[in-house]
Amino acid sequence: MKYKDSTLSAKVRAEDLLGRMTITEKVGQLNQRLYGFQAYSRENNSIEILDEFKEEVKKWNGLGFLYGLYRADPWSGRDERTGLSGAVAVKAYNLLQAYVMDHSRLGIPMLVTSECPHGHQALEGYLLPVNLAMGASFSRKLVYQTYRICGRQMRELGVDLALISMLDILRDPRWGRSEECFGEDPYLASVMSQAVVKGVMEEGVDVVAKHFAAQGETTGGINASAARIGERELREIHLPAADYCVKAGVSGIMAAYNEIDGIPCHANAWLLNSILRDEMKFQGIVMADGLAVDRLKDLTGNTKAAGIQALNAGVDVSLWDEGFTYLEDGVGSKITEERLDEAVLRVLNLKFRRGLFDHPLLGESSKIFDFSGAEENLELARQSVILLKNEGRLLPIDQTEKIKIAVIGPNAFDLYSQIGDYSPPLKHGITVSDGMIAYAEQNKNLQIGVSSGYDQHGNVDAGKIRDLAFDADVTVLVLGGSSSRFGKAKFDNNGAAITDGSDIRMDCGEGVDLSSIELPKDQQQMAAECYQAANKTVTVVIAGRPYDISKTAEKTDALLYAFYPGPKGGRAIAELIFGDARPSGRLPVSLPKSVGELPVYYNHRNSYQAMHYVDQKGPLYPFGYGLGYDKLNYSEFSISTEEIHAVCLKEEPLVITMKIENLSDHLAFGVPMVFLSHQEGSVIPRKRELKGFEKRLLSPGETICVKIRLGYEAFSVWNERMSYGPEKGRVQLQVKDGDTLLWSKIVKLV
Amino acid sequence: MKYKDSTLSAKVRAEDLLGRMTITEKVGQLNQRLYGFQAYSRENNSIEILDEFKEEVKKWNGLGFLYGLYRADPWSGRDERTGLSGAVAVKAYNLLQAYVMDHSRLGIPMLVTSECPHGHQALEGYLLPVNLAMGASFSRKLVYQTYRICGRQMRELGVDLALISMLDILRDPRWGRSEECFGEDPYLASVMSQAVVKGVMEEGVDVVAKHFAAQGETTGGINASAARIGERELREIHLPAADYCVKAGVSGIMAAYNEIDGIPCHANAWLLNSILRDEMKFQGIVMADGLAVDRLKDLTGNTKAAGIQALNAGVDVSLWDEGFTYLEDGVGSKITEERLDEAVLRVLNLKFRRGLFDHPLLGESSKIFDFSGAEENLELARQSVILLKNEGRLLPIDQTEKIKIAVIGPNAFDLYSQIGDYSPPLKHGITVSDGMIAYAEQNKNLQIGVSSGYDQHGNVDAGKIRDLAFDADVTVLVLGGSSSRFGKAKFDNNGAAITDGSDIRMDCGEGVDLSSIELPKDQQQMAAECYQAANKTVTVVIAGRPYDISKTAEKTDALLYAFYPGPKGGRAIAELIFGDARPSGRLPVSLPKSVGELPVYYNHRNSYQAMHYVDQKGPLYPFGYGLGYDKLNYSEFSISTEEIHAVCLKEEPLVITMKIENLSDHLAFGVPMVFLSHQEGSVIPRKRELKGFEKRLLSPGETICVKIRLGYEAFSVWNERMSYGPEKGRVQLQVKDGDTLLWSKIVKLV
Repeated sequence: MKYKDSTLSAKVRAEDLLGRMTITEKVGQLNQRLYGFQAYSRENNSIEILDEFKEEVKKWNGLGFLYGLYRADPWSGRDERTGLSGAVAVKAYNLLQAYVMDHSRLGIPMLVTSECPHGHQALEGYLLPVNLAMGASFSRKLVYQTYRICGRQMRELGVDLALISMLDILRDPRWGRSEECFGEDPYLASVMSQAVVKGVMEEGVDVVAKHFAAQGETTGGINASAARIGERELREIHLPAADYCVKAGVSGIMAAYNEIDGIPCHANAWLLNSILRDEMKFQGIVMADGLAVDRLKDLTGNTKAAGIQALNAGVDVSLWDEGFTYLEDGVGSKITEERLDEAVLRVLNLKFRRGLFDHPLLGESSKIFDFSGAEENLELARQSVILLKNEGRLLPIDQTEKIKIAVIGPNAFDLYSQIGDYSPPLKHGITVSDGMIAYAEQNKNLQIGVSSGYDQHGNVDAGKIRDLAFDADVTVLVLGGSSSRFGKAKFDNNGAAITDGSDIRMDCGEGVDLSSIELPKDQQQMAAECYQAANKTVTVVIAGRPYDISKTAEKTDALLYAFYPGPKGGRAIAELIFGDARPSGRLPVSLPKSVGELPVYYNHRNSYQAMHYVDQKGPLYPFGYGLGYDKLNYSEFSISTEEIHAVCLKEEPLVITMKIENLSDHLAFGVPMVFLSHQEGSVIPRKRELKGFEKRLLSPGETICVKIRLGYEAFSVWNERMSYGPEKGRVQLQVKDGDTLLWSKIVKLV
Repeated sequence: MKYKDSTLSAKVRAEDLLGRMTITEKVGQLNQRLYGFQAYSRENNSIEILDEFKEEVKKWNGLGFLYGLYRADPWSGRDERTGLSGAVAVKAYNLLQAYVMDHSRLGIPMLVTSECPHGHQALEGYLLPVNLAMGASFSRKLVYQTYRICGRQMRELGVDLALISMLDILRDPRWGRSEECFGEDPYLASVMSQAVVKGVMEEGVDVVAKHFAAQGETTGGINASAARIGERELREIHLPAADYCVKAGVSGIMAAYNEIDGIPCHANAWLLNSILRDEMKFQGIVMADGLAVDRLKDLTGNTKAAGIQALNAGVDVSLWDEGFTYLEDGVGSKITEERLDEAVLRVLNLKFRRGLFDHPLLGESSKIFDFSGAEENLELARQSVILLKNEGRLLPIDQTEKIKIAVIGPNAFDLYSQIGDYSPPLKHGITVSDGMIAYAEQNKNLQIGVSSGYDQHGNVDAGKIRDLAFDADVTVLVLGGSSSRFGKAKFDNNGAAITDGSDIRMDCGEGVDLSSIELPKDQQQMAAECYQAANKTVTVVIAGRPYDISKTAEKTDALLYAFYPGPKGGRAIAELIFGDARPSGRLPVSLPKSVGELPVYYNHRNSYQAMHYVDQKGPLYPFGYGLGYDKLNYSEFSISTEEIHAVCLKEEPLVITMKIENLSDHLAFGVPMVFLSHQEGSVIPRKRELKGFEKRLLSPGETICVKIRLGYEAFSVWNERMSYGPEKGRVQLQVKDGDTLLWSKIVKLV
C-alpha cells in the first residue's frame, strides 16, 4: 500500500489512496459538517466523544475535516470550565483523531480547522489587534511576527488550517465586518495578507484566506449583500490580496457569501476556476463559508442541487452544509467522477503534506502556551494607534510636573471593547483605565480620577462627568464602539450576531451593520459634557470601523483613533498619551465627514473631478493620514529614471530614493508612502493609488536612506480590453507621509 | 444631381450627396459647436446674425447642427427682451437657415436641436411636470399627450431634434438630476420613455433620448461620476429604457458623461456599437453630451485625440466640443473614411427624412403658440401628487363649513420651485398659495392666512408661523427643494449649476448633489414651530428628489409629496386638498428613512435576506406607495395559466385578470401593479420587479375589468451565461395597488 509509505511523495501517496476509496469515502473527505466544539464533552480533565461525532465518522467511514474543535466564545458556549486548553486540549485532539483513524477503513486522519480572526479563537489564545489596526500600523514586520506566534500556538494544538480574514477590502464603513479588513486599499491588504500567510505557514500551520471575492464591496454596507461591481473594479480592488496570498503559497481560499453582479461566489465557476486556478495558479482547496452552499437553494430550489452546483463551480470542501452530504447522488450524472476526484485529491494531498498519516497524534508532554513574554501584540497596538489632532501639542502629557487627569467614557473600562468580534473569553488584558492608573501608581505627580460616564442605572451621569472634567487639568475621554459578544447578543446559525440595537455595547462585528455611523447618542452626550466642562480634552476613539467623528474632531484638543488594539491596547494608549511610545499609525481607511458622503475611499476613479456635493467636501481625514510627536526631515529625493520602458519593468523596477532625518530627541517612525496616478491611458485612472510604503524606526538624530521600488504591477492596469499590463503615458508619482506631500514627479512610460 | 430630387428616397439622396462632399464638409456635418442662443442678436423685432455663426458656417462650408437657438434661461442670458419667441423666432430661424444654405457649396440645411427637459426650454414653452412627477402619475397616456403638445410647439419653431432626458434611472437621491428620471424602476422608465418618443415624433419632431448609459447609477450620487456596476446590472436596470426608445423609432441617442467600470461612455465601442447598434438595432445618430468628447483628453492627453477616440467608439455628432473640429487630421490614418462616411450619412439621412432640403424655411404666417387651453399639464400635475399619510381622514378639507386655513412655507410662494431645472423664464403659473387663495375667493366659508415663513430679512419668522398656525383650523405647510436657477446660481461651461450651498433656494438640479437629504435646516425649524402650534397640519413637500422626511411624516397629520408638478402645480395641489381632484400618484422611487440607508430602491437583489441594519429598517415609504381618498374593491383575480411554456411566451403572454369596483361617490383611480419575483434560476433574483401596471379612472359605483399581460420580457433575465431569456422555475406574481397586496400566486415556467 503505497500511500502508507512515508518515503514517497504526497502526490503519489494521495493518488494511490484515492484509487482505493469508495464514492462515499471520497464524499466524506469533502464534508466539514460538524461544529467541533460540539464533538466532545468535558468533565474536569476527562473528555468524552459525543455521539454526533461518532455518527458522522461512521457515515463517511472517516472524516475529512473537523471545524472549530477549540472554538470558545459565547456562541459555542465553551468556556474555561467546559472548553479545551492546555493538556486537556491535547488529550481531546488525540482522542478524536485516533477515533477517526480507527473508524476509517483506510485509516485516513482528519484535518482540524480553526478560526483565527485576530489570534486563535480558543481559550488562552494569543490575541492580536484586529486587521484594521494591523493595516493602520503599516508594519508588515509586526504583522508577520505576531501571526508567527499565533501559528506556533495553533501548531501546538494540532490545528491544520487557520481560517483568517484578509481578502476583504473595506469599502463601506457601515459594514459590521469592517474590522476584519486591513483597510480600503488593495495594495496595503495585499502585502499584509502575504505577511500573515508567511507568518502562520512558517510555523507549520496551513492557512485558508478568506473571503473570495469582493465581500467588502457590499450594497450599502449590508453583510453578505450584492457586490454590484464590474469586472475591472473586481480585479483592481478586490482580487489583488488573493493573488498575493496564492503567491505566498496559501493552502486554502474560502469563497465569500456575497454574489457578484448576480452570481453567488459559491456558484461562480469563472471566479473559482478561470481566475483563481487558471490565472492565479492556485492549487490548494476552495472551502465554502459557513452554510453558504446551502444558501444556493435560493437558486436551485433544494440543498441537494445546491451542493452539486457548488462542487461543479469549484468549491472543494463544505462548511456545515447539508448540500455536500448528497454529492454521492450526483456522481456519474450531474457530477463527473473527475471533478470529485480532483477535490478529494486536493484534500488528501494536504493531509499527506502535513504529515498526518505519519504523525497523527500530538505529544502529550509538549510544553504548551507560554506566550507570557510575547509582547509583539503590544508593540503592534502601539504602532497602530493614529494621532489625528494635537492642538497646542497637548500630547504627550508631561509627567514631570503635578497634573490631574480625568479618564472618562465606556471604552476606557471594557476590555472586550478593545478586542474584535469572535473573541474567546479573556483572562488578562489592560484597559485604558488600567493603563493610566498603572502610570499613576509609578508616579506621584499623576492624580487620576475615573468614570465610565454612566451612573448605576446605566444612564449618562452628567454631573459626575462635569465635576471630574472640570476638576482635571486634562480629560481623557475614551469613546467608541464594541464588537463584544459577551453582552446580550443572540446568534444566527452561522455564528453571526443578531442584535436589534438594544444591546448598545455591540454595534460592530459580523451581522452588525449600521445606517448611522455617528457615535452612540449617550456617548455624544458624554462628549458634549466633557468638551464644555474640561480644561483640555484628549479624545480616544476605540472602534472596529470608521465613525463619523466630525463634531468630536472639531471640539477636542487632541484625538487618537485606535482600531481595536487587542488585549494590551490600554497600555499602548497610556504609553502614547505619556510619550513613552510615539504615535506612528496611519489611517488605513478614509474617515468620512458624514454617512451621506459614502463612498469616501481615496482611490476612486478620477471621473469628472469638477463635481462634489454642494453641501460637503470630505473626507474628514484621508487614507494615510496620521500625525506624530517628533519632527522628521525628508530630503534628497531622487528617481532612477524619468522615462521607463514598460517592457523592462519586470526586470528593473523604478527606484525612488530619499533621505529621512530624525530631528527629535526621541525614537521616531518615518512612514513614507508612494502614490501613483496615471495621467493618460485607456481607462479612467484613479485619483491616486498606493504602490509602495516603508515604516522605519529612527534613533534620535539618525539619518537613513530609504528606497522604494515600483515594478511591473505598480504601473499596470486592466486596460480597455481587460488585459493586464503597464499603461503607457505620463504618470504622476507622489511621496507622502501622513498628509504631507513630500515630493512629486511626472514620469513617462514608453 | 440626384440629391435634389425630392421624388427619390432619403437614402439614395444622402448617398448621392455624400459622394460630392469634401472631407471638410463632411466633418462639418458632425460638428455642433455653437451655442445657438449666441448666434444672433435681437433689437426689438429685428434679428442680426452674429459673426461667430458666420465664421462657423464658413469654416465648414455649411453647418451640421445648431444647438439651442431658442434656449432662454439664466445661463443663456436670453429673456423676453433679448430672446426669441413668436414671429421673431420664426424670422430668426429663417434668417439663419437661409444663411447656412446660401453659404454651403452644396446647399445643405442645418438641423436645429433644442432642450426639452420638461417642456421646451424656450420663451413661452409649454412646461410640464418633471419626469419624476410623470413617473409618479403612472399614466402613459398623459405623458404621451403632454409631450405631443410640446412636440407641436417645437415643430412650429422648426426644431428638428428635441433633446429629452429619459434613460436615466434614479438609483441615488443625492443626485441633483434625480428629477430628470422617471423613477428607480427600469420598466416604468421604459414605458414612459416610449410614450415620450411617440408623443413628440408623432408631431413631426425627432427625439434624442438621453443619456446612454447608466448615468443614474453614479457613485454616491455625484453627477457624472463612475457607474461601477457589472454588465448584468447595466443590462437589467439601465439599458431597457433605451431599448424601448429604439423600438419606438427614436432618431438619436445621447451618450452619457459617466464611465462604466472605467470606460467613459463616449469612448465605449462595446456600448455604442455592440449593444446599441448590433443588439438593439439602432440606426439613428449618437450625439455627444456637452463637452464630453473633450473630457476624453484625460485619457488621450489632448482634445484632438479625444475627438478621434470618440468618433471611432461610435459617437457621430459632437456638442460644443473642440475635439470633433480636428477630425479631418485623423482621416486616412486614425479614422477610416468609412467610419466618417457612416456618421455623415446618418446626419444627411435625417436631414432628407425631415424634408429640410425640400422645405427648409418656416411659413412666417403660421399661427403659433396657442396652448392656453391645453390643460393636460394640469391633469398630469393632479395625477402625479402622492398622498402618503392621511390621519383621521383630514383630507380632503370640507369646504361646506366655515374653516380657517393657514398656508405657510417657502414652497407655497415660489413658482420656480415647482418647476424643474433648466427652465425658461415663466410668465404665468399658479403657486400653492395662489391656488388656495383662488378657492377662498370663490367660497366665503374659507378664510386663508399666508406666510412664506420668513421675515423681511430672510430669517425664520417663528412668531408669525406660530400665530398663524395656532389661529387656523388647518395649517397647510409647504416645504421642499428648489432647482430654480433664477437665484444666485453660477454656471459651469456645460450649463450645469455651480453653487456652494449658500443659495439655499437651489438645492437640486444638475451639479447640485447633496450629502444630506434632510429638508433645509430653516424649513425644519418652520416645521417644528407648525407641528407644535397647529391644530391640524397638512404637509406638502414639493421637490425634485426624494428627501428624508422621516420626522415630518411622523408629526404631520396629512402628507402630500409632489415632485415638481409644473406651472399649474399649485392649482392641482389646492384641488387635491379640497377634494375636487382625487390623489392617484404613486411613488416612482422609494423614500429613504435616512441617507445612511442608501441605496434603498425596492428592486435590489435578493441576496441574503436575513441581514439588515441593526439600527434601521427602511424605506420610509416603498416604491409604488400612495393612498387615495376613495375606496376601491379589487376582486375576481384570475390567471390564464399556472404553468407557462417559456417557448410560447413570445406568442402568448400570461394574462392576469381582475375586477375593480369603485365603492365611492367620486371619480377614483385604480393603479394595479404586477410585481414578479423568480424563486429559482441561474442568477440571484431581485426581491420583486414591476412588470406591468394600469391606471384606470372609475366613475362612482363603476366596476371594470382589467387585464395585465406579462410576455417574454417579463419573465426574462440575463442568465449566468449573460444570455437573455425566460428563466425556468417557480415565479411569484403579486398584484398591489399602493402598499396593499391584493393577490399573490406562484406560477411555474417550464
